[in-house]
Amino acid sequence: MDALAQLKELTAEIIDLRAAQGLLGWDLETYMPPEGAETRAHQRSTLAKLSHQMLTSETMGNLLKTLRKQKLDRIDQALVREVAKEYDRETKIPVKLVQEMTEVTAKAHPIWVSARKDNKFSNFAPVLEKIIDLNRQTTKVIGYQDSPYNALLDLYEPTLTVKQTDTLFSALKKDLVPLVKAIQESPKKPDAGFLRNKTYPEDKQWEFTITVLEAMGFDFARGRQDKAAHPFTMGMSSRDVRLTTRVFKTDIVSALFSSLHEGGHGLYEQGVDPALARTFLDGGVSLGIHESQSRLWENLVGRSKAFWTYFYPKLKKLFPKPLDGITMQQFYKAINTVEPSFIRVEADEVTYNLHIMLRYEIEKALIEGDLKVKDIPAVWNKNMKSYLGITPPSDTLGCLQDVHWSHGSFGYFPTYTLGNLHSVQFFNTAKKQVKSLEDQIAKGKLLPLKNWLNQEIHHHGHVELPDELSRRVTGEPLNSRYFVEYLWAKYGEIYGIK
Amino acid sequence: MDALAQLKELTAEIIDLRAAQGLLGWDLETYMPPEGAETRAHQRSTLAKLSHQMLTSETMGNLLKTLRKQKLDRIDQALVREVAKEYDRETKIPVKLVQEMTEVTAKAHPIWVSARKDNKFSNFAPVLEKIIDLNRQTTKVIGYQDSPYNALLDLYEPTLTVKQTDTLFSALKKDLVPLVKAIQESPKKPDAGFLRNKTYPEDKQWEFTITVLEAMGFDFARGRQDKAAHPFTMGMSSRDVRLTTRVFKTDIVSALFSSLHEGGHGLYEQGVDPALARTFLDGGVSLGIHESQSRLWENLVGRSKAFWTYFYPKLKKLFPKPLDGITMQQFYKAINTVEPSFIRVEADEVTYNLHIMLRYEIEKALIEGDLKVKDIPAVWNKNMKSYLGITPPSDTLGCLQDVHWSHGSFGYFPTYTLGNLHSVQFFNTAKKQVKSLEDQIAKGKLLPLKNWLNQEIHHHGHVELPDELSRRVTGEPLNSRYFVEYLWAKYGEIYGIK
Repeated sequence: MDALAQLKELTAEIIDLRAAQGLLGWDLETYMPPEGAETRAHQRSTLAKLSHQMLTSETMGNLLKTLRKQKLDRIDQALVREVAKEYDRETKIPVKLVQEMTEVTAKAHPIWVSARKDNKFSNFAPVLEKIIDLNRQTTKVIGYQDSPYNALLDLYEPTLTVKQTDTLFSALKKDLVPLVKAIQESPKKPDAGFLRNKTYPEDKQWEFTITVLEAMGFDFARGRQDKAAHPFTMGMSSRDVRLTTRVFKTDIVSALFSSLHEGGHGLYEQGVDPALARTFLDGGVSLGIHESQSRLWENLVGRSKAFWTYFYPKLKKLFPKPLDGITMQQFYKAINTVEPSFIRVEADEVTYNLHIMLRYEIEKALIEGDLKVKDIPAVWNKNMKSYLGITPPSDTLGCLQDVHWSHGSFGYFPTYTLGNLHSVQFFNTAKKQVKSLEDQIAKGKLLPLKNWLNQEIHHHGHVELPDELSRRVTGEPLNSRYFVEYLWAKYGEIYGIK
Repeated sequence: MDALAQLKELTAEIIDLRAAQGLLGWDLETYMPPEGAETRAHQRSTLAKLSHQMLTSETMGNLLKTLRKQKLDRIDQALVREVAKEYDRETKIPVKLVQEMTEVTAKAHPIWVSARKDNKFSNFAPVLEKIIDLNRQTTKVIGYQDSPYNALLDLYEPTLTVKQTDTLFSALKKDLVPLVKAIQESPKKPDAGFLRNKTYPEDKQWEFTITVLEAMGFDFARGRQDKAAHPFTMGMSSRDVRLTTRVFKTDIVSALFSSLHEGGHGLYEQGVDPALARTFLDGGVSLGIHESQSRLWENLVGRSKAFWTYFYPKLKKLFPKPLDGITMQQFYKAINTVEPSFIRVEADEVTYNLHIMLRYEIEKALIEGDLKVKDIPAVWNKNMKSYLGITPPSDTLGCLQDVHWSHGSFGYFPTYTLGNLHSVQFFNTAKKQVKSLEDQIAKGKLLPLKNWLNQEIHHHGHVELPDELSRRVTGEPLNSRYFVEYLWAKYGEIYGIK
């Protein structure tokens, strides 16, 4: 067997293990009985150990050495690039550092939970310092150019740099802050109360999410939807993709937009070329591009007039009483309310990215050594005031709200905003290339859009890098302009501003 | 680290992989989308390969060599015994033979499905011959005394031999055949039609199974129940045990007795000493002992007057219409109808074991070389006539009905009857040792029985061999007498015979 065939066989087995890991994780969040947690942790840790051993084995190193010298076709070259990247990273990080990170974050999570509950950032600070220190050590062994934070960004968004992010984010901030201000000063305020203070039977809500997912072209022969406390999507292969959502009886918005969001992720996973199954090229190319798919369906489709032109009558039929007397236009405005708020995950399309920028700036400064952990609350609150005009009354509603740092994840947050920016840039391109796209959506025909995304984005899996993909699909690198234009157009109309 | 600690660490990881395998299998039968089958097969095969490699590694061989010489306490001795047994078996069987068996049985299953559909045993015969040949080769490399079939029995029921089985089964047959005949000749025939020709809403049936499982003491914090086409139980550890059942709208019996049966298996898995978690001593000791637990709850409890004294009023409350006018006594007789029939899985308590004996005799003769595959249908039909007084009208209703042979499993069937025999022997002991056991059951108090089983049987996991366990708990080796006495007493009353 030649080196390439050997590499494919070895990596296929790693993918099998990761898929099994995926199921262990999915089950943990959906069906596992509560007492199963301890043995589940052992199972996950053993599988992680085995796939790490397989990835960093001498055999793998030798195969990669041989293959880096060989002339390969485009796909195989991409495969070797992806495997080599993970091999390099995992062989560079000493086992001791990995273990320390595992131990510290295992401790950090419950500390964060109780610090958040007690509204005491100072209780979380010592373990956070340790986590930042380990992240800085990691950036050193991985290596980086310019900023250590680049090494962390690259984990989630391959090739992304601080320089690019700074450029994107500063342009975005310049446009967003005045938009938020203008919206706040507008006398027009949509009434959104009915979304969350009436009774919407859970089974009807579930039924509606399934209707929408089916219209989106999510294939239930190759996937399913279940309930989970924190919605997520898990793809084991394009033929087995699990969505999750959550349903609240008095909230018509949560399940619906969770399903649209996760459905967008799910379509990506289902849409990858089956020829890439059991390879490192299967699945989405980066967190940012993945998030572009979820946000595209959640916001650009799911919060659009076109979508509700078709779906609002259906929704009203399911919930005739609570929606009695509420017009499509009122509903549309209600689901597009903009209001500065403390909690990122509850933020609207306009204010959301300012939450992200605030975190990005803090993370970058922490990793670059320009900010001390003890100063986080002050910087957080100062920037909330400056970006959103509000000051968190507590750390719980401020710098203690997100789970990410307790997990050891730094460099993850920016991908949320990248997703938002990419989503509009992709959607604009789709509008040019798909015949009467918005008219189709207004007729409930979502498949032309899904098929375009399949062909242009999903099919390619990991073959390209995110930037290559953006250039091929949209003709240019990521640009925050389109996103800002979209927001001004949409919210200008809703709030009567220019 | 000493050899024992090393062995424990290594085997704990094998258990983790097996638990992950368990989840992959459970998910396959419960929630996996249909198209997921192909990637699932890869995942399972990779995990099997890895755990085989870990079990048969040189490290494992060396540790066992060291430990076999060491003086160990009772539990550790049992641990080494169990690991060594699996190590010996898996290292003895050449990889080529394992692969051949995997390939042949992968082919055999669909061939069996279509032969059964077409009622053509001759289509299945060639691949069955191959399977038998591979089983015979396996017995040779594993080694055996007296009969090659002993090597196969030992796979499912450690230390069980043809000699013991022959003794048990011939005594049993001598008593059962006349009992079946007497029941058939009795003019008393319970009316059981209403069990399967009325409408029993599925959600109410589900509710009742949960009520019964809770009364049995099945711990839903450490387990759950889901639906599957073919009910089974999967224990990943005593803290995560999954039951499955199936619910038919017009059949009040299927879900209920499946849940009782699987609940019995589940209590066993949940009841093992937590100190044995992540070791080769966790879980049930053998298929026969495991089956004794499921049959004890299904038949000795679930088909008893005491049980229904408490539960029948509850059942009637759930299904007032279809059970209108049906007394507890009528219901009790209906669920205890004896009627010779062609299909093993639908057979009643009395005739069931004759189906097993027939298979045992055929399997033994095939493996010992005394019967040719082409002669199976003739022997099958002849013995059905002699044991049950009926002749299958087709191979589909005869020798093609069971999936086991197509899976390559020989030596498995006898454990079903062992389970039945053990169940009565255990239950008789419980009646002596648990104060007013049947009165408690009649009051819906099932926990005294569950606690006794926990203490006497479940807690011990794999520490003892099946025969040791039977002697410790009941004071004697397995004896078919108690089972026959139970049947005569119970069915003598129902059918008015002596």
